[in-house]
Amino acid sequence: MTHRPDKLFKNIEDATSRVDEFIFKFLEPREPKRLYEAASHIIRAGGKRLRPYLVLKCCELLGGDEGTALPFAAAVEILHTFTLIHDDIMDNDELRRGVPTVHVKWGMPIGIAAGDLLFAKVYEAILKGSSAPPDIILRCLERLTDAAIAICEGQILDNSFPSAADVTEEDYLRMIGLKTARLFQASAEIGAIAGGGDAKGVGLLGEYAYNLGLSFQLVDDCIGLTSDEEILGKPVGSDLKEGKKTLIIIHANKMASSTEWEIIGRVLGVRHAPKEDIDRARIILKGLGSIDYTLNKAREYAERARKILDNLPRTDAREELYRLTEFVVERRT
Amino acid sequence: MTHRPDKLFKNIEDATSRVDEFIFKFLEPREPKRLYEAASHIIRAGGKRLRPYLVLKCCELLGGDEGTALPFAAAVEILHTFTLIHDDIMDNDELRRGVPTVHVKWGMPIGIAAGDLLFAKVYEAILKGSSAPPDIILRCLERLTDAAIAICEGQILDNSFPSAADVTEEDYLRMIGLKTARLFQASAEIGAIAGGGDAKGVGLLGEYAYNLGLSFQLVDDCIGLTSDEEILGKPVGSDLKEGKKTLIIIHANKMASSTEWEIIGRVLGVRHAPKEDIDRARIILKGLGSIDYTLNKAREYAERARKILDNLPRTDAREELYRLTEFVVERRT
Repeated sequence: MTHRPDKLFKNIEDATSRVDEFIFKFLEPREPKRLYEAASHIIRAGGKRLRPYLVLKCCELLGGDEGTALPFAAAVEILHTFTLIHDDIMDNDELRRGVPTVHVKWGMPIGIAAGDLLFAKVYEAILKGSSAPPDIILRCLERLTDAAIAICEGQILDNSFPSAADVTEEDYLRMIGLKTARLFQASAEIGAIAGGGDAKGVGLLGEYAYNLGLSFQLVDDCIGLTSDEEILGKPVGSDLKEGKKTLIIIHANKMASSTEWEIIGRVLGVRHAPKEDIDRARIILKGLGSIDYTLNKAREYAERARKILDNLPRTDAREELYRLTEFVVERRT
Repeated sequence: MTHRPDKLFKNIEDATSRVDEFIFKFLEPREPKRLYEAASHIIRAGGKRLRPYLVLKCCELLGGDEGTALPFAAAVEILHTFTLIHDDIMDNDELRRGVPTVHVKWGMPIGIAAGDLLFAKVYEAILKGSSAPPDIILRCLERLTDAAIAICEGQILDNSFPSAADVTEEDYLRMIGLKTARLFQASAEIGAIAGGGDAKGVGLLGEYAYNLGLSFQLVDDCIGLTSDEEILGKPVGSDLKEGKKTLIIIHANKMASSTEWEIIGRVLGVRHAPKEDIDRARIILKGLGSIDYTLNKAREYAERARKILDNLPRTDAREELYRLTEFVVERRT
C-alpha cells in the first residue's frame, strides 16, 4: 500500500496557508509592537503544522466542514507555539526552526510574555473566531485546557529526568504522553467534536492521534541526534547536552559497556560538550542499536495508530490520516 | 458617611475562605508534585483576594447567588496569581507576600511552568466548575481572555518604560489600565454577567471596577515606597531599583531641581542601590509632593468609582462596593 507522501505534503501545505491566515488575524501587531513581533516569530519561521492538520482532517472525516474546524486548528497551533517559546527558555535553547529563539532575540521577559500572550490567544481564536454551538465550543475548550495542563506536567517531568537516577522506559513514555501525545490527541478530538462526531468517533480518533503523537516524539528524538543542524534548524545533540533521558539514552544505559557509557557520560548534561565528543557519543549510540530500538518503538505506535483508523469510515480524510502514520516515521525533519 | 472598613475585612475574609476552598480543589497535588506545590505557593502565602470579592459582590448586586459566582471568582484569583509568578521572574523579584518568589524557591523552569499551569487552571476552574448556561460561560471566558491579553501588553509596556526617554502621565495611566485595571474590570463584569445582569449593569460595574483598579495601583506604587518591608512582604523601593516609571517618578521628574534629580537618579534602575541612597530618594520624593500627588490621583479615581455606584440598585452588595473604594485608598498594605 503506497500513500504518496508528496501528495500529503501538498495537502498539508494547502491547509497550512488557510490555518496561518486565521492565526495571523489574531496576531495583528498592536502596541507593544515588540511583544506581537515576538509572539509571531516562531510561527513565521515555519513548522510542520501537523496538529492543525489533524484538527481539519478529523473534522472532515466525521462529516464537518473546514470552516468549522479552522478556529480550532489555529488554536492548537498557537498553543503548540506557546509551549515551544516557554520550553526554549526553560531548556536554554538558542535556535529553533533555523532562527534565534524568542528569548534570545528579544530577551527573557518578552519571551515569557510572548508565550503568555499566545496562550491567551488560543482561547481568543476560539471564543471570537468560532461560530460553532456554545456546547460544542465548551467541550473543545475543555479538551484543549486538559492538554495544556498535561503539557506543563510533561515539561516538568522532562526537566526532572536529567537529575533522576532511574528513569524507566515507562516513565519516559508517560512523559512524552503528557508533553506531546496529549496535544495530538486533543487536536484530533477537537476536530472530531467540531465535525459533529459521536463519542465513539471522537474516542477512536483521539486514540489514533495519541499513538501518532508518541510515534512522532520518538522519531523526533532520533532525528535530533542523527540529522544535521541545517535540516534540523537547531544544534544536533542538544538533548544529550541537556542531559535529557530519552528512550535512546535509557536503552543505551542498559546495553553499554562501562567504557561506552563513560564516553556517553562525557556529553550527557554537559552544556558545552565539544562537537567531537558529541560525534563519538552518537556513533556509540548508533552502534548499541539504541536509535534503531527507538525507531522500532515509533513504528509500533504508528502501526497501532494505523489499525485504529480501520474502524473509521473509508473517506479521503481517512486516507490522509493513514499517510500521516507513514510520514511521522519516514520524515527526516 | 462611614463604611466601617473592619466589617469589610471580615466580609472579604469570609468570602475568601470559600473562594480558596474552590481554588485548592483545582490545585490538588498531582505528579509532578513540585509543580503543584510551586503553583499554589503564592496563593497560600496570602493576598487580599480583592478580585474574587469583586466577582462575588457584583454577582450578588445584580441578583445572582454566590454559588454561581464562585468558579469565576476562583478563576480571576488564579489568573492574578499566574501573572504575579511570571512578573516576578521578569522583574527578577525575590520576595512576594513575605515568602521567596516561586522561581527563587524552585528555579526558573518551574516558575514558568507553574504560571502556565495556573493559566490553564483559570479555564479549567470555569469549564469544569461552573454550571452556568453555556452562553454565559462563553461571555465570561471572553472577558477573562481579553483581560489576560491586556495584562501581557501592560507588563511589556511597564518593562519598556525604564529605558524610554519620555514616559508621560497618560502613558503610565494607560499602562496600569492594561496591567491592573482591566482585570478589576473583567472581575466585576464576569460577576455581573454570572449574576444575570443586563448590558447596562455589566457596563456600569465594569467601569466602577476599572476606576477602582487604577486607584488601587496608584496607591500600591505609593505603599511600595512608604511602607516597611515587614508589612509589605517585599523590599521597600524595589520599583525605584528596577527603574519603573511610576506616576511618582514622572511627577518628580517635572518638579525636582537638578540636585534632587541627581539623588533620585542614583537609585533609579540601580539594582543594588544601598539602603541609605533609597532612603534619601524617598525623602526627596516625599518633599517634592510626588507621593501626595499620586495619592490624590488615586482618590480621584476612587471617587469616580464611588459615583458610578450611585446608578446601581441600593443593596448590601453595593454598600460593600462603596467600602472597597475607601479601602483601596486607606489601606496600608
